[in-house]
Amino acid sequence: MEKKLAVVALGGNALLRGDQSGTIDEQEQNTTETLENLVFLIREGYDLVITHGNGPQVGNILMRNDAGEQMYSIAQMPVDICVADSQGGIGYMIERMFRNVLNKHGINKNVVCIVTSIIVNINDPAFSDPQKRIGKIYNKNEADDLALRKGWIFREEIKNVNGYRRVVPSPVPIDIMNQKIIRDLARKGNIVIAAGGGGVPVYIDDKKDVRPAEAVIDKDLASSLLASQIGADEFYILTDVPYIYINYKKPNQEIKEFLNYADALKYLNEGQFAKGSMQPKIEACLNFIKQGGKLSVITEAFKLADKKYGSKITMEYEDDRR
Amino acid sequence: MEKKLAVVALGGNALLRGDQSGTIDEQEQNTTETLENLVFLIREGYDLVITHGNGPQVGNILMRNDAGEQMYSIAQMPVDICVADSQGGIGYMIERMFRNVLNKHGINKNVVCIVTSIIVNINDPAFSDPQKRIGKIYNKNEADDLALRKGWIFREEIKNVNGYRRVVPSPVPIDIMNQKIIRDLARKGNIVIAAGGGGVPVYIDDKKDVRPAEAVIDKDLASSLLASQIGADEFYILTDVPYIYINYKKPNQEIKEFLNYADALKYLNEGQFAKGSMQPKIEACLNFIKQGGKLSVITEAFKLADKKYGSKITMEYEDDRR
Repeated sequence: MEKKLAVVALGGNALLRGDQSGTIDEQEQNTTETLENLVFLIREGYDLVITHGNGPQVGNILMRNDAGEQMYSIAQMPVDICVADSQGGIGYMIERMFRNVLNKHGINKNVVCIVTSIIVNINDPAFSDPQKRIGKIYNKNEADDLALRKGWIFREEIKNVNGYRRVVPSPVPIDIMNQKIIRDLARKGNIVIAAGGGGVPVYIDDKKDVRPAEAVIDKDLASSLLASQIGADEFYILTDVPYIYINYKKPNQEIKEFLNYADALKYLNEGQFAKGSMQPKIEACLNFIKQGGKLSVITEAFKLADKKYGSKITMEYEDDRR
Repeated sequence: MEKKLAVVALGGNALLRGDQSGTIDEQEQNTTETLENLVFLIREGYDLVITHGNGPQVGNILMRNDAGEQMYSIAQMPVDICVADSQGGIGYMIERMFRNVLNKHGINKNVVCIVTSIIVNINDPAFSDPQKRIGKIYNKNEADDLALRKGWIFREEIKNVNGYRRVVPSPVPIDIMNQKIIRDLARKGNIVIAAGGGGVPVYIDDKKDVRPAEAVIDKDLASSLLASQIGADEFYILTDVPYIYINYKKPNQEIKEFLNYADALKYLNEGQFAKGSMQPKIEACLNFIKQGGKLSVITEAFKLADKKYGSKITMEYEDDRR
């Protein structure tokens, strides 16, 4: 019987927590702790594809690009190159830490990272309504100057932060490049790292050339699409909460450990899940189930190892596990 | 009959010329022009693995790390992460430009980039005699401060440049990670981009953990090792001169279009080839031949397409072609 194939999406704080300064030592330690929790999936015989966020890392890369231009007049790289840079750096780091975790546990498996472009539709409505905030916070004069010189679009910051940030579109991913290679390598027993940071966003033009999109793809939606396209059985999103909640942080807050597709969709449509945070995760999980995936899980990394924990979405309730 | 397998190493100026400022437009245009010259190899039926340098790009990444720390107190990344970042960014760019070159020529082939670590020996004598200059030029006070804070080693610049540069070891590559995957993907007809920037240098410690080496591996030596380890038939180094010369830039300068192993080794031992420039390229070519490779070629990218051009090294003279 073919082994189960799982895609595991590592969230931002699986690699770097918000209260940390971002040194490589911190990143390597967090990554190791996160990957330790995946050992049980390997022991249970799963083939694995790992995806990951890149928020803090690509944020730093964008800031360094700004600083390098200001201090040393080094040409800034566009967003697609910055995302690709982050795939290389983070992918290598995850590969190395995973090799060492496997070595510690005496598990003989290989790890490989594929630089992954993901195709979006240039007519996606996101391109006329950029919403994803990236890079540093500028004052009004700086923002106006950059808008003029580089054509960047800015929005005023919210939540008591004074200033402006660049916004880029966050289009829907429609096709993962090299998905067959990713699947085949995973099916041969390699742990494959792919689609980092939501993938490098590209689009296909009228001549069928591949063009870069100045955009950022949501990493959970990208990971879910990858999971569907490679025929994964299960899809895991590791984040900073142990469960899916409804009425989150209200007096009537409720943990939802087992959800079926219809109920999760209902809660989503009710606006139960925070935009840009839990909402795209739920959407990603539902997309995967809708495309035939058997199980979506949202939980914290360190609770993953004990299968009692975490919230599970399936097409129907799994009554025997309730 | 199995197709011929070739490894083609793209030199620094195949992607970015010394007289250019380093914008992404320049890099994409140069890369496209370089890759156009590889189309004939594909038409002749070769399976291809592409390697590349990263000198200007990783130099800029290191400078941006310095600037980001100074302006925004962003933690600097170590050399291994910077090299991995450059593999992601450059690898993605080469993949995209190659897809478009293939599209233009109506060739149906896939392109994929593998983030590649390369194992070095931590007891390599290079680690006690770091020679490879990287990053920005500092004044004496800055260099002393960084040496104290970060443990970096500096050397005074030469050739009328006033200041100090960080030096890192340039150890010999001994084993390419994921070489079987690289070979298999190439043998299935994918154009594989690998071992960028000489590979991310790592070593194996006493516990068999993979550790990062603060070092830079020569990209031609890394490419040659990859070519040998994947059983390539031919190895091409694309650089900024059309031929191998002896008595280079002297009155008795001589083009060497056909060289056998013994003569090339003799010239190498005579010191005919410039250190850090043509010398490692010749060494890389000779290593490949010694390990059983059939043909090493050194030439300019745009002369590659006409097989009459360029210098060729084989074990024996190819008398019929002289």
